[in-house]
Amino acid sequence: MSPELEALVARLVDERVHTRLQHVESALAALKAAPPTCTACPEDRASLVVFSGEMDTLFAALTIGVGAASMGMQVSMFFTFWGLTALRKSKSYAGKSTAQKMVAMMLPDGPAHVPTSRMNMGGLGPPFFKYLMKQRNVESVPDMVALAQELGVKIVACEMSMGVMGVTREELLDGIDYGGVAVFLDDASRSKISLFV
Amino acid sequence: MSPELEALVARLVDERVHTRLQHVESALAALKAAPPTCTACPEDRASLVVFSGEMDTLFAALTIGVGAASMGMQVSMFFTFWGLTALRKSKSYAGKSTAQKMVAMMLPDGPAHVPTSRMNMGGLGPPFFKYLMKQRNVESVPDMVALAQELGVKIVACEMSMGVMGVTREELLDGIDYGGVAVFLDDASRSKISLFV
Amino acid sequence: MSPELEALVARLVDERVHTRLQHVESALAALKAAPPTCTACPEDRASLVVFSGEMDTLFAALTIGVGAASMGMQVSMFFTFWGLTALRKSKSYAGKSTAQKMVAMMLPDGPAHVPTSRMNMGGLGPPFFKYLMKQRNVESVPDMVALAQELGVKIVACEMSMGVMGVTREELLDGIDYGGVAVFLDDASRSKISLFV
Repeated sequence: MSPELEALVARLVDERVHTRLQHVESALAALKAAPPTCTACPEDRASLVVFSGEMDTLFAALTIGVGAASMGMQVSMFFTFWGLTALRKSKSYAGKSTAQKMVAMMLPDGPAHVPTSRMNMGGLGPPFFKYLMKQRNVESVPDMVALAQELGVKIVACEMSMGVMGVTREELLDGIDYGGVAVFLDDASRSKISLFV
Repeated sequence: MSPELEALVARLVDERVHTRLQHVESALAALKAAPPTCTACPEDRASLVVFSGEMDTLFAALTIGVGAASMGMQVSMFFTFWGLTALRKSKSYAGKSTAQKMVAMMLPDGPAHVPTSRMNMGGLGPPFFKYLMKQRNVESVPDMVALAQELGVKIVACEMSMGVMGVTREELLDGIDYGGVAVFLDDASRSKISLFV
Repeated sequence: MSPELEALVARLVDERVHTRLQHVESALAALKAAPPTCTACPEDRASLVVFSGEMDTLFAALTIGVGAASMGMQVSMFFTFWGLTALRKSKSYAGKSTAQKMVAMMLPDGPAHVPTSRMNMGGLGPPFFKYLMKQRNVESVPDMVALAQELGVKIVACEMSMGVMGVTREELLDGIDYGGVAVFLDDASRSKISLFV
């Protein structure tokens, strides 16, 4: 076989195929190296429903929310039913029905006055719990809410439970969002972590 | 070298390589255009364990379940322990041990009679809560369960807690599923949202 | 042109291209058969916060954890606040402040003595519940914790709540981990299922 023929084949193969083949190979390598982010993957988010209104459960929920925000996650906290307590700034009886006034009376004065779920014997529980937390330099619930807001946690008050319980926007903290369960579901369905507290 | 030879080599290169290369190129283009949905991605599902049996927690769980179903998600609700209350249609003492009869007595008569977790002072709580909800045109727990069933929510009664608590299938609603924790885990591991209520 | 020449050219073309092309084709087939798992996808993990300390909630949390581990998932359980009860082996008053001694007194003696969340009438609840569970050959809470450890469930005690509540490592089971909320968040953000119990 002539070396000329071999050289010709090599040149023509290279001319006609080499570039295309190289292109395919590098595209394949790129695909392998950086696998496609598929659209159904969760984002770096955490979404919480805060349903319970006791000091310890609020504290646990806020610790998780603040912790996740500190770690760079986008955090959404949806406060509903008793959880609304964490967002109250003051009691108000104006413009309420008798029934709603009764709910207002039953609800604590704001996050600084909520009972604990377990140590509430004769009212001893909450100040005692707060004393223990202060001893350990642990933040209080209102401080945690403020911290969450500073860290950019999205705080949503459930409009439906506000309606049922007769809580008005004036009674709740400034700078929060309002919405229904769809807001939570939308956030949660894009989140790596979703919790009901 | 003769132009004939060059033409021959060119033709053979095309014949032997062109088709295969074209095939690879189009497959690669297709892969890039529609990156594969990886199998570990969550599906558009929400899965809930409903453990608590109070009216407010049941209501919250059902609001989330019905909401998710309304948004087009496939919803699975696994009712266990006190949560079974939401699925009861009537009390039954037949064929139960004395201990199981005691549990039956302790359990409320069905979802229309469950207490609230917080406002149950002297029995005032539930009718009061129901009154507030009715005022605001909010559905009751039994209505919510019926609505969930209509919307195609998969409702599963936990067989193990039924066994422990002596609840029989006859006491529970028609058209529901029965299963163990594996059913929940299987659904939840494919879900975007999983919650324990 | 001679058939010999044609055969020769064909062989030369194959030599230069065939191997590379075959390589590309098989890599492409492999990519299609097993699409790359994108890095944001959840792993086959389940992560639980165990906040509640009642027998029934502990039992539910452990049933889910043990169930997930049995199904081959990597399970992480973060015990915080009242949930720490499940990990206690004995009470200790040594080296505690008066306030912490009060918490120690209030906490049950260990997972074998925790109350149920609902049937605790005059102390009747827990032994009654245990009796029902034994009748049905259902494991007790301490047995479930031991089983979880055997199955390789990662058990983490929350250091912050240990500090607040004055619980020491000596009071908790051997072979467990210690950490803060970041440990839970790190595990949960890689998990298919995350729950707050």
